[in-house]
Amino acid sequence: MILDLAKKRKTVRKFKREKPPIEKLFKCLAVAREAPSGMNAQPWRFVVVESREKRSQIREICEVAEKSFHLSVRGELGSWLKEKGFSWEKPFLEEAPYLILVFARKDAPFSKESTWLAIGYLLLALEEEGLGTVTYTPPNPGDVVRAIEAPSNHRLEVILPVGYPADEREKYERKPLEEIVSFESLKE
Amino acid sequence: MILDLAKKRKTVRKFKREKPPIEKLFKCLAVAREAPSGMNAQPWRFVVVESREKRSQIREICEVAEKSFHLSVRGELGSWLKEKGFSWEKPFLEEAPYLILVFARKDAPFSKESTWLAIGYLLLALEEEGLGTVTYTPPNPGDVVRAIEAPSNHRLEVILPVGYPADEREKYERKPLEEIVSFESLKE
Repeated sequence: MILDLAKKRKTVRKFKREKPPIEKLFKCLAVAREAPSGMNAQPWRFVVVESREKRSQIREICEVAEKSFHLSVRGELGSWLKEKGFSWEKPFLEEAPYLILVFARKDAPFSKESTWLAIGYLLLALEEEGLGTVTYTPPNPGDVVRAIEAPSNHRLEVILPVGYPADEREKYERKPLEEIVSFESLKE
Repeated sequence: MILDLAKKRKTVRKFKREKPPIEKLFKCLAVAREAPSGMNAQPWRFVVVESREKRSQIREICEVAEKSFHLSVRGELGSWLKEKGFSWEKPFLEEAPYLILVFARKDAPFSKESTWLAIGYLLLALEEEGLGTVTYTPPNPGDVVRAIEAPSNHRLEVILPVGYPADEREKYERKPLEEIVSFESLKE
C-alpha cells in the first residue's frame, strides 16, 4: 500500500557502507519514467554517479557554495538550519554509494513540474526497495552541471544520494489533513 | 508494487458519472501530505471542489483562456495539440465528480518543487484507489485563484479532475531507460 510506504519514507542523510546492487536503482528509475509530463516530453535525465572520485568532486563543489551560503543566511531559514543542526558540510554526497543527479530539459513545457512529479515517483520506489535518500539541492547547480558535462540546455533539479539507510533521525512531523485540505474555496 | 501502479497509470480525461466516495480522496491526500518539502514547510494546499456549480464556473473560466491560447498557439506545441486532437474545450473540468485544486504557498522555499513532488505521490495514490485524473494546468491560473478565493500568496499549480476512469485512450509511450539514464556524466 502506497500509504504505508509514504508514511514510512523519511529523509535519510546517513548511509551504510554496503553498496546496493545497481539493479535496484534501475528498477526505481523504471518507475520514475512512467510519470506523466507536459506534452509527454519526458524532459528528465538521470545521471548515476558511482565513482568515489566523482562523488568527492561533487561534494567539494557543493561545499564551497554551502560555506558562503551558510555564512550569509539569516532570518527564518537561518534559525531553522541552526535548530536542525545543519552545517555547510555535506558528507552524504561522498558517503552514499550512489548519487542520482536529476536534470530537466529547459526547453520542454512544464519541465520543472514534470520532473519533480517524476522525483515523487522515484522517492516512493526507492523506499519500496529499502533505499534511503535526501532531496539535496545545491546552492550552485551550474557548477555541478559543468562538472557532469551536462549540455547547457539542461537544468540540475536535485541530487539524490542513494544507499541503505543508517539515519536515526525521526521523520519530521506532518500537518494534520484539516490544515491542508479545504472544500470549495481556500479562504484563510 | 509501485512499478505496476506506475506502469498502469495513464492520463484520464473521461470519467464515469458514478461518484467515488470522498473517503477515497482523503486517503490519497493523506499520502500526498507525507511527501518531503523544503524546510519541511509543507507548502501545499488542496481544495476539493464537489459542487456542480463551482465546477462549471471553473470550466468556464479556463475555457475562455483556452480559446485565446488555442487561437494563438503555433509551432511544435500547435502541431502536437492538433495531432493529439486537443481543443480549447475542457469538459472534464465539469464532468469529473471532483476537482482537486493544488496550491503552493509562494513564500516557502522550493514550494513549486515540493508541491509537484507531492503531486507525484498523489497520482500514484489515486491509481491505487482506482481513480483517474489528468494534470491540467490552465493558461490563466490567476483567474482560478480568484474564483476559489485563495489568498494571493498562493499559486495554483494544477487542477486534478478526479473520478472513475472511462477513457479508452492508451497511455503515451515512454522513452527506453537507456535514453534517459546515463553514468558519471551527461555528455550528449
